[in-house]
Amino acid sequence: MRALARAISLVEDGAPEAAAILREAFPRTGRALVVGLTGAPGAGKSTLVDRLVARYRSERRRVGVVAVDPSSAFSGGAILGDRVRMQEHATDPGVFIRSMATRGHLGGLSRAASDAIDLLDAAGFDPILVETVGVGQDEIEVARAADVVAVILVPGMGDDIQAIKAGILEIADLFVINKSDRPEADRLAADLQAMLTLAPEDGRPRPGVFRTVALRDEGVPELREAISSFVTGAGAGQRERRRRDRAEARFLAVLSERLLGRVLETAVRSEGINAIVEEIAGRRIDPYTASERVLERVVIR
Amino acid sequence: MRALARAISLVEDGAPEAAAILREAFPRTGRALVVGLTGAPGAGKSTLVDRLVARYRSERRRVGVVAVDPSSAFSGGAILGDRVRMQEHATDPGVFIRSMATRGHLGGLSRAASDAIDLLDAAGFDPILVETVGVGQDEIEVARAADVVAVILVPGMGDDIQAIKAGILEIADLFVINKSDRPEADRLAADLQAMLTLAPEDGRPRPGVFRTVALRDEGVPELREAISSFVTGAGAGQRERRRRDRAEARFLAVLSERLLGRVLETAVRSEGINAIVEEIAGRRIDPYTASERVLERVVIR
Repeated sequence: MRALARAISLVEDGAPEAAAILREAFPRTGRALVVGLTGAPGAGKSTLVDRLVARYRSERRRVGVVAVDPSSAFSGGAILGDRVRMQEHATDPGVFIRSMATRGHLGGLSRAASDAIDLLDAAGFDPILVETVGVGQDEIEVARAADVVAVILVPGMGDDIQAIKAGILEIADLFVINKSDRPEADRLAADLQAMLTLAPEDGRPRPGVFRTVALRDEGVPELREAISSFVTGAGAGQRERRRRDRAEARFLAVLSERLLGRVLETAVRSEGINAIVEEIAGRRIDPYTASERVLERVVIR
Repeated sequence: MRALARAISLVEDGAPEAAAILREAFPRTGRALVVGLTGAPGAGKSTLVDRLVARYRSERRRVGVVAVDPSSAFSGGAILGDRVRMQEHATDPGVFIRSMATRGHLGGLSRAASDAIDLLDAAGFDPILVETVGVGQDEIEVARAADVVAVILVPGMGDDIQAIKAGILEIADLFVINKSDRPEADRLAADLQAMLTLAPEDGRPRPGVFRTVALRDEGVPELREAISSFVTGAGAGQRERRRRDRAEARFLAVLSERLLGRVLETAVRSEGINAIVEEIAGRRIDPYTASERVLERVVIR
């Protein structure tokens, strides 16, 4: 467990050893079921993930959790709440929990999360639950990396279906109405069904709608079953395409990160990134011309 | 107006003319006040932006609006709601509204939004209101590009202050409690004040808390005043640092996008990106080794 934690940290920090670690791990990956769980803050994702973990543990499966919270980027650390909430599983060697904030610019978050998933996978954790705050582009990227994506909604959060944007609809394999003991739950379920009925056919199976009250463990066994059923049933045909999409996104993210790193180290360092930034901030040079100047020094054989 | 719309489209699409357009526009930029407005879906951002636009119009200022919604990435278009809502200003030549979905991976969204802001700025729009869904990394990047950032909250969205994550707190220059005629508004205001009192000193002025009911135009004049007061008062000292941070982020985003584009065109095309992706998806090569192979062909003089 300690070696795994350390490996994830090295990978997350982009340490020099990271590439070698991932290279070693890679042939052992591709076995775990990756479950994405996404929803707005306050939807009760954390509690639901917690209950799912308990469920899988009762089946003696080793469970990995990657909790992604880009909004903690600025405070630089994991959310205290996540730590507290997961304390039930903190001493269980069959559960590995990792909270992740963002890793700088440019897609670094989904790259780091994918790497962490690979390491957990190689270490034999299965399933791996990936929890994201489901609004931003990066989080959607992370969710897309999953074999099955559950979108978690909560009654009374918005005034209407407006909160369920098209993007969320398009990544959802399952909808979960959490806190479904609230009075507005029926209306949300009806709105959701109406929306799903009206949604254009895109060849994917229509997502099922499930109700849970995670705090009281209600509906969680059914959700756990639905996840399995999706993967072996309705979603089986998409699995290959998704894995391919994931491979492409990862390749581009890794390549881009390394390219920029290399160029900043060599081409830019010699004249100093600060000097360039000052010139741009002072409107003496635009970012495109500044980039062109650097690119002139990059040769592809 | 048509030329501007076309220029923004070219820039957004990364057309060959984009760099030349931005190069021309750049010396004319840096004059507009850029106001970021961010909040969860359903917070009423759109209505509030609409009211602020009306307010600035009554002062005969030409107003630009950039509405960023990454969740519409999958549907590929702007949100119908945005279009409908803004119809009041649609025929007003003193208002320019642009909705933006995501532009692919890797920070493309904040890059495209920054470019659009520059074009509006060069065209003489001032202020420019930038509306984002305030959870993901990309949206936070966009908000950070602003001279002043208002975070919009709404009572009763979450059960507690949990929804106001540390990251949001750290980007907020002003807090707006919209729909503040709801009964939970007082509790939210009290929670927020308590949180602000407890927040560690980071040298920035403590954000003010404002109440609005955008639908009835209540509190909007006060908010408009607060925006000006922040920029000339409490926020004046930060403006240079922010502009520098913005310049750095833009330079890196543009450089990264161009680098990757160039490499994909030349080094990768010859052997075919699909072949590489298939190998990664089949776990025959890891993304790091695949990237290394491409990078071996990149030489920096």
